Amino acid sequence: MVNETDTSTTESVAIVERQGAFADRDAWTLQGMCRMEHSLALIGTRSALVLLREVFFGATRFEDLVNRSGLSEAVAAGRLKELVAHGVLTRRPYRDPGSRTRQEYVLTDLGSRLFPVLVSLIEWGELLNDDHHSGLELIHKQCGSPVKTEITCGNDHPVALDDTAVQFRGEDRAQPSP
Amino acid sequence: MVNETDTSTTESVAIVERQGAFADRDAWTLQGMCRMEHSLALIGTRSALVLLREVFFGATRFEDLVNRSGLSEAVAAGRLKELVAHGVLTRRPYRDPGSRTRQEYVLTDLGSRLFPVLVSLIEWGELLNDDHHSGLELIHKQCGSPVKTEITCGNDHPVALDDTAVQFRGEDRAQPSP
Repeated sequence: MVNETDTSTTESVAIVERQGAFADRDAWTLQGMCRMEHSLALIGTRSALVLLREVFFGATRFEDLVNRSGLSEAVAAGRLKELVAHGVLTRRPYRDPGSRTRQEYVLTDLGSRLFPVLVSLIEWGELLNDDHHSGLELIHKQCGSPVKTEITCGNDHPVALDDTAVQFRGEDRAQPSP
Repeated sequence: MVNETDTSTTESVAIVERQGAFADRDAWTLQGMCRMEHSLALIGTRSALVLLREVFFGATRFEDLVNRSGLSEAVAAGRLKELVAHGVLTRRPYRDPGSRTRQEYVLTDLGSRLFPVLVSLIEWGELLNDDHHSGLELIHKQCGSPVKTEITCGNDHPVALDDTAVQFRGEDRAQPSP
């Protein structure tokens, strides 16, 4: 279980700094402005994320996706339809001997670019459980070492939460803060 | 808008390879095995993720969180209570002049470690919209360059989706695949 943080301590608050016109935070809300809105509209449900996890781990067929995800057929069918409509998954025909042609679900390029979301969710899940010696592990298959996320910038600097700022796109690029 | 992938093409399927005892995929499901389950149980809802986004971007007070998230007071209150109970957020007293002491919400260390989840969701959201010249941008404040996620391993190799494998923890570490 997770240890509850002692609420009597006053710890420093790690937040993203606001720069430029965005610094006047009361003048703006993030609704409709943040790219994360678009992501959450498509995949911001447990059912979508669980189906995507199963596809990343190799499930392609509807029955398999239903069994592995633990979702009902109706919920799985609805989510898969949405994910196909938005170009995250695509349908591909397959045919088992003696059966009619059916459709399986595979990741598109857009879908495969959800990989960092998947890895970061798995990585964070590790922190929630004391039992680090059971369960699945995602590894780099060439060297066997566990996979992790790193946050960097376009100049390949490692970036911590406190090193980040949010601003309107294109604003203040020539004047980084000290 | 997202371009729909041409479903008539047969593209290669990028998936995570299964190794060791896990390679017999029909013998196992991921339910209860994958760390991502734990993450999704806590934050696998749009409302939790939107509240966390607002906290990452500097909102701490209940009224502010409600206004910025666009959630109802009841939904926001319920989610915040869950996030505090699970140690993602903590409550901290504050007092405005002439007012009674109230509680604000700040990230715990566990909560702040959701930063890669936030960044990866924002980054993926970028791909969903043609308009790359509006909206918010998350930057490295020391150099002004946009922030991104990288997937690496314990040996600091860059890791692509096709370079990953899933296995039972501790299994086959001495025998990485060629």
